[in-house]
Amino acid sequence: MAKQKKQPRPKAETPKGFRDYFGAEVTERNEMLRQIAEVYHRYGFDPLETSAVETVEALGKFLPDVDRPNAGVFAWQEEEGDWLALRYDMTAPLARVAAQFRNDLPNPYRRFTMGPVWRNEKPGPGRFRQFYQCDADTVGTASMAADAEICAMLADTLEAVGIPRGDYIVRVNNRKILEGVMEVAGLAGDDKEAERGIVLRTIDKLDRLGEAGVRALLGEGREDESGDYTKGAGLGAGQADVIMGFMAAKREDGPATVARLTELVQGSDIGAEGVEELETIADLLAAQDYGPDRIVIDPSVVRGLGYYTGPVYEAELTFEITDEKGRPRQFGSVAGGGRYDDLVKRFTGQEVPATGISIGVDRLLAALRAKGRIGGTAQGPVVITVMDRDRMGDYQAMAATLRKADIRAEVYLGNPKNFGNQLKYADKRGSPVAVIQGSDEAARGVVQIKDLILGAQIAQDATLEEWKSQPAQREVPLDDLVPAIRAILDRQG
Amino acid sequence: MAKQKKQPRPKAETPKGFRDYFGAEVTERNEMLRQIAEVYHRYGFDPLETSAVETVEALGKFLPDVDRPNAGVFAWQEEEGDWLALRYDMTAPLARVAAQFRNDLPNPYRRFTMGPVWRNEKPGPGRFRQFYQCDADTVGTASMAADAEICAMLADTLEAVGIPRGDYIVRVNNRKILEGVMEVAGLAGDDKEAERGIVLRTIDKLDRLGEAGVRALLGEGREDESGDYTKGAGLGAGQADVIMGFMAAKREDGPATVARLTELVQGSDIGAEGVEELETIADLLAAQDYGPDRIVIDPSVVRGLGYYTGPVYEAELTFEITDEKGRPRQFGSVAGGGRYDDLVKRFTGQEVPATGISIGVDRLLAALRAKGRIGGTAQGPVVITVMDRDRMGDYQAMAATLRKADIRAEVYLGNPKNFGNQLKYADKRGSPVAVIQGSDEAARGVVQIKDLILGAQIAQDATLEEWKSQPAQREVPLDDLVPAIRAILDRQG
Repeated sequence: MAKQKKQPRPKAETPKGFRDYFGAEVTERNEMLRQIAEVYHRYGFDPLETSAVETVEALGKFLPDVDRPNAGVFAWQEEEGDWLALRYDMTAPLARVAAQFRNDLPNPYRRFTMGPVWRNEKPGPGRFRQFYQCDADTVGTASMAADAEICAMLADTLEAVGIPRGDYIVRVNNRKILEGVMEVAGLAGDDKEAERGIVLRTIDKLDRLGEAGVRALLGEGREDESGDYTKGAGLGAGQADVIMGFMAAKREDGPATVARLTELVQGSDIGAEGVEELETIADLLAAQDYGPDRIVIDPSVVRGLGYYTGPVYEAELTFEITDEKGRPRQFGSVAGGGRYDDLVKRFTGQEVPATGISIGVDRLLAALRAKGRIGGTAQGPVVITVMDRDRMGDYQAMAATLRKADIRAEVYLGNPKNFGNQLKYADKRGSPVAVIQGSDEAARGVVQIKDLILGAQIAQDATLEEWKSQPAQREVPLDDLVPAIRAILDRQG
Repeated sequence: MAKQKKQPRPKAETPKGFRDYFGAEVTERNEMLRQIAEVYHRYGFDPLETSAVETVEALGKFLPDVDRPNAGVFAWQEEEGDWLALRYDMTAPLARVAAQFRNDLPNPYRRFTMGPVWRNEKPGPGRFRQFYQCDADTVGTASMAADAEICAMLADTLEAVGIPRGDYIVRVNNRKILEGVMEVAGLAGDDKEAERGIVLRTIDKLDRLGEAGVRALLGEGREDESGDYTKGAGLGAGQADVIMGFMAAKREDGPATVARLTELVQGSDIGAEGVEELETIADLLAAQDYGPDRIVIDPSVVRGLGYYTGPVYEAELTFEITDEKGRPRQFGSVAGGGRYDDLVKRFTGQEVPATGISIGVDRLLAALRAKGRIGGTAQGPVVITVMDRDRMGDYQAMAATLRKADIRAEVYLGNPKNFGNQLKYADKRGSPVAVIQGSDEAARGVVQIKDLILGAQIAQDATLEEWKSQPAQREVPLDDLVPAIRAILDRQG
């Protein structure tokens, strides 16, 4: 028999585009999700957790002309033949649930959901193929009150997670106005769908490309810095003027903006409908005292996604941060959404109006970190060092005593021979206090406790003798372990 | 051009073996995860969240002789050729992380992690292909103190989530003793590996098959009720006696059990080592006052998984529940784990001792539900009904006022025409209170508030007039909305 060939060792690597989250990264995200859930819950939204896996059929990504329907999604085929995929957002699973459970769910159905989504895209710096989304949607009502409510909730949520009023703004617009503007610009009709698509994607890039760039793309096309040429929508100068006029329609306050928009969509029914919806939302928000310091009407918000059918909204952080090259820049968008009335129809044939937002939790966490509003490092546990390995039971009992008093504590479990290693370990753990008890101390019923924050400077390379001579260290009766350590923790704040 | 063929409507269905979680199911699980995390954290364990996706190479499931390495896992091939898969447990990703980040992590490294895992198995009733695991492991120490600590932590965790002392038991055993027993039974050596595997899997089924069933499988084999025949390990009666003697070695207390085990492994070095390890753990637990009411030595715990190398532990709920057929039965195992010293070695070639537990969160939730210790339904929001659709702003302002006072509230957003539908909706939402304000009430600056728990019996089909005549309903000034509703909520308790 041939000897089996030795397998090479597997590589210990996170797959490309994925990452691991450690310690405070996990805790801080969980805490943010908890804060968001609290606000959503208070607004009457109910939690929903769908599985990570959906049928490709339900996700609506099935392309019959390719072998594997995995463009943009991670998909695989079941042995019995069904294609399954990881969800790429939270909206597609919601549409499936709303159709599947339509007889059991309250109507309208307000739900929130939080969890990872997966995108099968080329990973890049800071771009991951798994990230968190945190969505709230109301399914089953065409009322603008649902949209107003979601805008108000979004403002409340940002404040709840630690973005003070003034550091964010929620912008609201309506796709129907844009449709009306396109009609006025002569871009109505089925045969102009491609042009409208280009216009939509183009004006969404106003921030990035500037007015000249957008004008070029609305016209013949544009060559970017790298020399790549993008074909434009082919609009004439007059048509482009109408579109650009819409993007610049924001005035000093809501009513003035609405008046300007009314002018712009003159003669378009759908446009007039959009302006009316926008006014209704503005009135509803005003009745609840959500003023322009929190929520504004802004015609430049269009949202790239094709499926929005009415109001669209976006939350932006308005403070500056310093980017990786040291340049100041606006932090930008952290959440967005809008009304989409056709998603459930795919399943049932019936139109079910729906509206909702998605919060980019990872971006929001990055913003709070950039502002220094969350820590990034968590306090480590009290470390009970091991001076005498036969007395492990005593050391574990000390840890148990501390934990019962709600103090985070652990016993050093590495090789206790080299005491310096134990101190290095405590340092790496971010430990606030070390507890030391040799046989001498044990005989006298005392322990040494050491304030590691105070003693941090010498902790790296001190001998036990140097260590013991430090003022940050003192001897207390074993029975006083809890109060003595609590006093140090309180002092450290 | 040929007309595009119309696609049939997609089915709105959760994929087979997956499920959705609604409302209280989500909240209760999150609350349990939070409670568990709190205990783990207090023991000095740090959170880790790896991505759901791993390379198949890192998971160690790659079988070079099959086309698709997806036996048991959901796997797919990247366009560049790498096979990726959803994690099937939390231990394999931990081994990868411990190898990948070995220079950055503290050593020993205590970590906990919680989240879904995926199994590509045939789904069955109550068996899902995605479920939660909640693991804690210590990597990098061979000390039995790590194992004792994890057993103590498991006991504390069960109490923290609401299983009182007496309703659970943590059982501890050691694989080395079993190895010693096999040696005594003449099953040592590489050529007996298959037999040892069968013995291991067989005795793990003692609960289910009973002594006779296990004896049959240790011998020639066994025919089950369905007529299926399973080949046995082929042991002689004397050999089987040794094995069964081991399974029945539990005595009235730990020391007596240890004494019995010492007898059984007489002459086997590895067996003696196992007994010594078990004694060390027992001593360490005794030093922290974890007595046999919480943690016991029990030789019948073997754990099916092949990779355990030393101590193994299992937590069992000891109370009876009623199964779906109305028969009383023990709830059984909710957590388990043990020491595995070879997992990291796959990557680095170096042996890294590790030990840990995995809690089956979904089973634990089911247990608490079966005992009526968690609710299963969450209280719904206060519902502000809509009597006059032009005054939506006022209704939303009422909801905002309630939320500011930390009262969960929502405005009815369906079609307000039929008031009965609004009440049905409030009922479906589990709403405690409804608020009603018609134009008459608005003119007088008052609202009607209705205790829906009190009025539940007639809520289904009452007319507005009947509704208004109920004693559970009363009129209060709009300014008293918050205190009046809080009084009802307090009364409902």
